[in-house]
Amino acid sequence: MFNPFRSKPDLIVHSEKPYNAEPPLGRLRAAFITAQPDFYVRSHGDIPQLDEARHRLTVNGHVATPLDLSMAELRSRFPPRKVIAVMQCAGNRRADMQQVRPVLGDPWAPGAIGNAEWAGVALADVLRAAGAADNPALHVAFSACDEVEMAGEGRFRFGVSIPMAKAMSPDILLAFEMNGEPLAPEHGFPLRAVVPGFAGVRSPKWLAGITVQEKPSDNHMQQRDYKLLPPDVSEETVDWEKGLTINDMPLNSAICEPVPMAELKPGRTTLRGYAIATARDIMRVDVSLDGGRSWRQAELEHDPAAPWSWTFWHATLDLPKGAHELAVRAWDSAGQTQPALPDDTWNFKGYLSAAWHRVRVQVS
Amino acid sequence: MFNPFRSKPDLIVHSEKPYNAEPPLGRLRAAFITAQPDFYVRSHGDIPQLDEARHRLTVNGHVATPLDLSMAELRSRFPPRKVIAVMQCAGNRRADMQQVRPVLGDPWAPGAIGNAEWAGVALADVLRAAGAADNPALHVAFSACDEVEMAGEGRFRFGVSIPMAKAMSPDILLAFEMNGEPLAPEHGFPLRAVVPGFAGVRSPKWLAGITVQEKPSDNHMQQRDYKLLPPDVSEETVDWEKGLTINDMPLNSAICEPVPMAELKPGRTTLRGYAIATARDIMRVDVSLDGGRSWRQAELEHDPAAPWSWTFWHATLDLPKGAHELAVRAWDSAGQTQPALPDDTWNFKGYLSAAWHRVRVQVS
Repeated sequence: MFNPFRSKPDLIVHSEKPYNAEPPLGRLRAAFITAQPDFYVRSHGDIPQLDEARHRLTVNGHVATPLDLSMAELRSRFPPRKVIAVMQCAGNRRADMQQVRPVLGDPWAPGAIGNAEWAGVALADVLRAAGAADNPALHVAFSACDEVEMAGEGRFRFGVSIPMAKAMSPDILLAFEMNGEPLAPEHGFPLRAVVPGFAGVRSPKWLAGITVQEKPSDNHMQQRDYKLLPPDVSEETVDWEKGLTINDMPLNSAICEPVPMAELKPGRTTLRGYAIATARDIMRVDVSLDGGRSWRQAELEHDPAAPWSWTFWHATLDLPKGAHELAVRAWDSAGQTQPALPDDTWNFKGYLSAAWHRVRVQVS
Repeated sequence: MFNPFRSKPDLIVHSEKPYNAEPPLGRLRAAFITAQPDFYVRSHGDIPQLDEARHRLTVNGHVATPLDLSMAELRSRFPPRKVIAVMQCAGNRRADMQQVRPVLGDPWAPGAIGNAEWAGVALADVLRAAGAADNPALHVAFSACDEVEMAGEGRFRFGVSIPMAKAMSPDILLAFEMNGEPLAPEHGFPLRAVVPGFAGVRSPKWLAGITVQEKPSDNHMQQRDYKLLPPDVSEETVDWEKGLTINDMPLNSAICEPVPMAELKPGRTTLRGYAIATARDIMRVDVSLDGGRSWRQAELEHDPAAPWSWTFWHATLDLPKGAHELAVRAWDSAGQTQPALPDDTWNFKGYLSAAWHRVRVQVS
């Protein structure tokens, strides 16, 4: 199987099969728009190698007019639409939770996130063309071409769904471009969903089918994975029906520079990182040199034209000699902030890891 | 000055002048809709004694047709509208922050909150009748009849503003009834604003004027009060322009029963309380018997027809003999939760106190 990243030793590979990798944080923080080769990859099976000329998108279920569209028809029948938006994995920063107790899944650092300019057509336009009822109680299910293999589940095609109320937002795209280029194979060529604000799992790559239906997808990925469960629930005791389906992502932030265990010179050091809130704005970012006992404010680098993007921040500080625990926390416009400790949000799947991000450095 | 609550020794009075009081938590938790006599009162000056027959509401500023309406005209010209919504003070639960360091303001327990059925007319209807431009960059300023006296500020009438984007929501009311009765004097008779989701300060009582303007209100209450500031800022160093204007309220929860220092019998005890999220839903409430070292889930009592209301919860637990620190924390539908410690959100004004609520009890 072709893998475009095997020759890129500077991505941090968590798993070769399926291929899961994230960029080093300094490279991630280098640009507000993340280049495709620097963008994290989360796959659940082999990366499909699809032929755009033969690829088709079907739209069916509770629609007046089922559709079966070539990529050329999708491009020509609907107005083009672009959205700058973060894509992030529900498991981003999972590694921090492993400090508390083991968790299932790849040990993502804070790099399972990226910000891109997505181009395609609006899902809402396609749904309207199919005559789908704009009933917010309905669900829009996506089926994709990647095959997932799971113990006890056998082999199945990836599928998820989103509520109709979200699907009708003009910012939800069926995208065929990322940063002005065709999607790379590992990012869903030739077609993917882009659902800003939601966890990456709800934006399937290699998208082939859309079904308007009364219930959420019955796919394993929707029903028995990507759910948030309380800390007293284990792999043995889990009742998946009681979990929260992870859609909207929580307030989060990370230090990208300096990196953990960095050895620094005394004097002025600039901390750089990102913060993200999905329904509100980032209004303040605090940084600490002493593990959170005292705080000062970072400078924000906002792009108000890109409400689904992350907020970059930086803070230049005087670091004395010694060992320091740097920390960051973000605040949203409702005065909400992040929990202090990974234990505060621990769950056995390691989802939505959003405690203060801490980085230990040595100044000598 | 008439004070309808002086004869009610079962309200907890923080200040007589201005009159500020909250109900005991057991009474607060007794009903999903909070009766007017049980509703917290936050005043900034003497309670105005107004005559409905003579009261007028003016609407001016960036409007095509300034209005000057009697209460009878307000009632007859616009369609009636009801909303069930929580009103809460930005200082609710401030007392918890005083565990960390002193704060300015009344030491509110978790009772500076209540849930009512408000009836009146939609602010948006009145703004449209005045020909106000529906430009989300504008601000809607409220002026009220209560006079505030502050050291260094002299005496001035209470005023605040909200963004036009919020003002045009059909759920923002100019209310003259609370739970089917006229507003009591201390709750704003004959007319108040009700801005669901926002801190109580943005819902002025004794409302007399509305001005559509390009900037937020220049009133002291808007500019140099009710702002969230970082923990390194003190009364001496504060730069009010750098604070966050407190509008949307954060995720919060509280234990109403048992009360702090309760002496209980061993065996089954039911914890009861409330949780509140303003832009998302409460999706889970966790309770702890051991100060947050372990958690179990409470039962939620949702009313899906009342999205601006609180969520009541209860949990029946076996309490062994000994001293226990009960705790509660809520989770919203983005998997966000509350910080663990009051120190995590401390600010010198004691606003937005939203850490886990802890109650110590003795079982013997």
